[in-house]
Amino acid sequence: MSKVTVGIIGAGRIGQLHADNLVSSPYYKLKSISDIHLSHLKGTHYEQEALLTDNPDDLFMDPDLDAIFICSSTDTHADFIKRAARAGKHVFCEKPISFLLQETREALQVVNDAGVKFQVGFNRRYDKHFRKVYETVRAGTIGLPHVIKVTSRDPEAPPEEYIQRSGGMFMDMTIHDFDMIRYLSGKEVIDVTVKAANLIDEKFMRHDDVDTAIITLTFEDGSLGVIDNSRQAAYGYDQRIEVFGNKGVVSAENEHNTTVQICTKEAISSAHPKHFFLDRYKDAYVEEVRDFALSLLENKPLTCSGYDGLQAENLALAARLSWKEGRTVAISEFCPVKID
Amino acid sequence: MSKVTVGIIGAGRIGQLHADNLVSSPYYKLKSISDIHLSHLKGTHYEQEALLTDNPDDLFMDPDLDAIFICSSTDTHADFIKRAARAGKHVFCEKPISFLLQETREALQVVNDAGVKFQVGFNRRYDKHFRKVYETVRAGTIGLPHVIKVTSRDPEAPPEEYIQRSGGMFMDMTIHDFDMIRYLSGKEVIDVTVKAANLIDEKFMRHDDVDTAIITLTFEDGSLGVIDNSRQAAYGYDQRIEVFGNKGVVSAENEHNTTVQICTKEAISSAHPKHFFLDRYKDAYVEEVRDFALSLLENKPLTCSGYDGLQAENLALAARLSWKEGRTVAISEFCPVKID
Amino acid sequence: MSKVTVGIIGAGRIGQLHADNLVSSPYYKLKSISDIHLSHLKGTHYEQEALLTDNPDDLFMDPDLDAIFICSSTDTHADFIKRAARAGKHVFCEKPISFLLQETREALQVVNDAGVKFQVGFNRRYDKHFRKVYETVRAGTIGLPHVIKVTSRDPEAPPEEYIQRSGGMFMDMTIHDFDMIRYLSGKEVIDVTVKAANLIDEKFMRHDDVDTAIITLTFEDGSLGVIDNSRQAAYGYDQRIEVFGNKGVVSAENEHNTTVQICTKEAISSAHPKHFFLDRYKDAYVEEVRDFALSLLENKPLTCSGYDGLQAENLALAARLSWKEGRTVAISEFCPVKID
Amino acid sequence: MSKVTVGIIGAGRIGQLHADNLVSSPYYKLKSISDIHLSHLKGTHYEQEALLTDNPDDLFMDPDLDAIFICSSTDTHADFIKRAARAGKHVFCEKPISFLLQETREALQVVNDAGVKFQVGFNRRYDKHFRKVYETVRAGTIGLPHVIKVTSRDPEAPPEEYIQRSGGMFMDMTIHDFDMIRYLSGKEVIDVTVKAANLIDEKFMRHDDVDTAIITLTFEDGSLGVIDNSRQAAYGYDQRIEVFGNKGVVSAENEHNTTVQICTKEAISSAHPKHFFLDRYKDAYVEEVRDFALSLLENKPLTCSGYDGLQAENLALAARLSWKEGRTVAISEFCPVKID
Repeated sequence: MSKVTVGIIGAGRIGQLHADNLVSSPYYKLKSISDIHLSHLKGTHYEQEALLTDNPDDLFMDPDLDAIFICSSTDTHADFIKRAARAGKHVFCEKPISFLLQETREALQVVNDAGVKFQVGFNRRYDKHFRKVYETVRAGTIGLPHVIKVTSRDPEAPPEEYIQRSGGMFMDMTIHDFDMIRYLSGKEVIDVTVKAANLIDEKFMRHDDVDTAIITLTFEDGSLGVIDNSRQAAYGYDQRIEVFGNKGVVSAENEHNTTVQICTKEAISSAHPKHFFLDRYKDAYVEEVRDFALSLLENKPLTCSGYDGLQAENLALAARLSWKEGRTVAISEFCPVKID
Repeated sequence: MSKVTVGIIGAGRIGQLHADNLVSSPYYKLKSISDIHLSHLKGTHYEQEALLTDNPDDLFMDPDLDAIFICSSTDTHADFIKRAARAGKHVFCEKPISFLLQETREALQVVNDAGVKFQVGFNRRYDKHFRKVYETVRAGTIGLPHVIKVTSRDPEAPPEEYIQRSGGMFMDMTIHDFDMIRYLSGKEVIDVTVKAANLIDEKFMRHDDVDTAIITLTFEDGSLGVIDNSRQAAYGYDQRIEVFGNKGVVSAENEHNTTVQICTKEAISSAHPKHFFLDRYKDAYVEEVRDFALSLLENKPLTCSGYDGLQAENLALAARLSWKEGRTVAISEFCPVKID
Repeated sequence: MSKVTVGIIGAGRIGQLHADNLVSSPYYKLKSISDIHLSHLKGTHYEQEALLTDNPDDLFMDPDLDAIFICSSTDTHADFIKRAARAGKHVFCEKPISFLLQETREALQVVNDAGVKFQVGFNRRYDKHFRKVYETVRAGTIGLPHVIKVTSRDPEAPPEEYIQRSGGMFMDMTIHDFDMIRYLSGKEVIDVTVKAANLIDEKFMRHDDVDTAIITLTFEDGSLGVIDNSRQAAYGYDQRIEVFGNKGVVSAENEHNTTVQICTKEAISSAHPKHFFLDRYKDAYVEEVRDFALSLLENKPLTCSGYDGLQAENLALAARLSWKEGRTVAISEFCPVKID
Repeated sequence: MSKVTVGIIGAGRIGQLHADNLVSSPYYKLKSISDIHLSHLKGTHYEQEALLTDNPDDLFMDPDLDAIFICSSTDTHADFIKRAARAGKHVFCEKPISFLLQETREALQVVNDAGVKFQVGFNRRYDKHFRKVYETVRAGTIGLPHVIKVTSRDPEAPPEEYIQRSGGMFMDMTIHDFDMIRYLSGKEVIDVTVKAANLIDEKFMRHDDVDTAIITLTFEDGSLGVIDNSRQAAYGYDQRIEVFGNKGVVSAENEHNTTVQICTKEAISSAHPKHFFLDRYKDAYVEEVRDFALSLLENKPLTCSGYDGLQAENLALAARLSWKEGRTVAISEFCPVKID
């Protein structure tokens, strides 16, 4: 194939983002979009750009489609993955694959058996800043990593309805940081220790959730990782990483709205970090779908596999257990089986 | 009209850039592209996206077209502007309008008589960083401007063939800085004093041109401006501005490739400034055509008018004269007549 | 008194630093220095500046002395504190007060009973950068602190002989960070959780010590703290802090050798952080003895009391226990009794 | 000699600064201070530290003195230099040597004939940041300098009485920048072109002076320099330099009060530049007298000679003439004769 012909299941915020990126991409032909609520796409440009349907089977059964993007709600992922894989479609699936480890494993088993490609949407791996950090670590510039630090704070707490269905902060938000820290380290995590708190809003507590956490991880080679999370940073989206090794340190700072500095008698001020994740990771979203296309068109290995999705879920579950039981949790308690 | 239907004359690097931006824009319908050498567009995606012709009259005579983008070589601008204006088309024209002041004036007179809108392509006005500087100055935050400084250095000297047809550094490169400094000041320049040198390559001297310059300007209110130019900055495209006023200073630094810092025993290093102008001003090019569309669709005033184009050319010619004669040159020597 | 007349016990590196600062200070008159090895002071300027003795009793029994600086090895601190206090001398003591909690408590009890003033040498409280962070937090600018982060990395691992007598990384190095995090928070720590490693050199392991650690703390109000330590940062002394609160974040970056940036085709490079703690905290050492003088001369409260010294030791011991037992350690296990 | 025995003439602000630095220095013995108004030194620590006299002859005639620091008002410099030199004393003289070129030349001739050493107080050459820029240029890292830029803005306009006796902005303030630009370039300036303005306060105009200027210089190798000055920067003392060469650029930014950054919803703010020149150049003042001592004690060449003082005055006078006559002024119009 010269282009990847795709369909999208789920046309919410993230599904629409992918649709727009697929339409602009020279690597894709977007053929169809499936959503349970078609009405909200009425009158939009998507009507011109793709066939719209409320039946995902129209996609699974379409022999034209090479791949399917699964952007629907998390509880539907595993089922759609299995149906897509069994229909011989390659799959791009938003994170997390599932809230249930067993479900994730089964879905990945089906993917494996079907021999299709599978990418999970950890978009931050494709961010140019974090990619540069990754490359610097791999090049050996900072030597062996000793401590990897991730600061990840959302600009605003999500609405209560979202919290309720989010799977909790570790599964919804920290999962990105778990993936990043695994990606940067190149080593597996062997244990997780969490101190978490409810400091921002009681609505988190109402859903047995936290809004603030320090998560310490031990890697298989004895090196350490630490993630600090907050659901609400008054000054904007705070996304920084640092890898400290025996030969140096490499870090990525926030992207700011502008490079402008204003100096007056009263203050020296500069621009805020980018506030919205779609703005901050705009290019990363483009890059992740480009990467998926290239893995299909040129049979390149995927940057972010189903196994990566599974491991991040393991860590999210271990984190929750650590918080609940006030102890270090070994990942071996979850017995992950490597699938690939 | 709900969208602006446009044709492009000249499909070189900048014409193609605009074509791509017009196609992606919700405000435009790109109908046709005219170029004297159609062969280089063979097999490109432009064949799908627009009618291709080597006769610009096909555009002037097309009643569908609301506006024409003139992206051909500078010596053809004035003629095409006049023909477009007489055909009742709005005009977006790349800088400079012409190398000859008389020609520029005549073209603008025709535009004026025809009552069409005219925008000149000073893309930097639409850069978000410089825009923020502009807004900060207009808001009075730094008080009355006393000194405006522009540093503008290209990453690499152009090829000799380009130099030969460029109109000289002041007309080709500094013209952007002249426009920026007028834009930021909000005042007209009354005189120009240049010290220039040929330090990078003899090829500039061979074409009676310079590669390095310090250009000092006096504004009508007695405040000062200074531009420093170089045709070749080893470390990348260097584009900085600073407005110093009686209450403070506002400045815009370079955009860098990433926010990554690497610290080792040997060095503390960070990313280079963006190297290529199309990368550095990517968003500004999108914004400038959006702005042009809005001025047509919503009858908003233009941010960058024909008069702005004329004044920048005046300054470029005054700068050349100042360099040649080793003296301060008053702009009144060029008797600009305000047209609008 | 118009000046504080002082003697110093212990004229090693830190004792000499204090001696120099006392001599330059308008608040002090340095009268005498006691050291068990007088020979290394032979021929130095200290001979002109102070009476030299190898008998500390010469200081305790000197009615001229208002205060004594204890800069000898840690194992001698408690004894000297008690003798100085019983002689009615105010005491400035280097950190830690003692390696044994019981000894520290007894010494502070004697100080308390004698009614003399006592300051422990946590110099970083007097650093202008950290002081500004402290003031910003106290002013409420960033709201209620949610997470306090301290990065503290030495430029080079100490020699093995030093490690052996250091009391371990937590007591020798992290103790500064424990004090800083208590100082910034204004709240007491209720538990400590440590993940530590031996990654730099086996010499640490040989002395049952670590060289790398992530230390998470819970404050009494539920907010969190995290310290990351390394005994060896290839790029220099790394000393950063960040206080994140519900209204914002305040942080202090490293001080660098210069503000110079060099940009070439190969690299964009800037200056290293200051490498040596005596250089980095030069002004803080001056400020801490000035502060001690002012507390005596003007009867102001001390910024850094014996209780602060005791609490930091508690935290260091809790950290060691947490590392050893692989669990969160509650500070209440150490039953500190507030003395002041 | 193992220490330089010195006297100071003139105990105003700068004389007292030097006195304090000399007293703290291991290289000097300060013996005497001469001032026409001794009363303001009554009760100060200078009474303990030096012999006080209102007769400068007490210094010239004192056989103990190796060198004399001339810190009195500019109109007295030339006379004191000549008397000191004839008495065989080495001379450190504050800038400028004189307001009159002829006087400066005569004084330097006497210095030359007497064979004593002479240093002029261009303290900024000893600033660690600018020194690093200088070393980077000399090391060839940025290649051949093409453009040297100096931004130099005072935090506050001086009082009218000061302006009246200052010799004008170019002689009083820009003279430092002229020296810096010569120092960094290593080439002589051949012409000066000034655009200046009175924008801050009419008191400058009342004394035939300016408060804002752009000064362009041509070096003997054709490279360019540009200085921008303002007598009043609302945000603090602004002292930046940049050397742009064919292989790169090196720059020194301002020193700020702290490294602290505060991020809130409202603003991202950082610390102001150091405000006061005595604070900004504190270490440079220490270093310049150390350097003078070493040139005497170890017979090293001076970093900043009388010739350097003379050339900076030439440039200041040329700048004033350029401003007055609205033209480029060649330095050859002033016929400097190299003395050394």
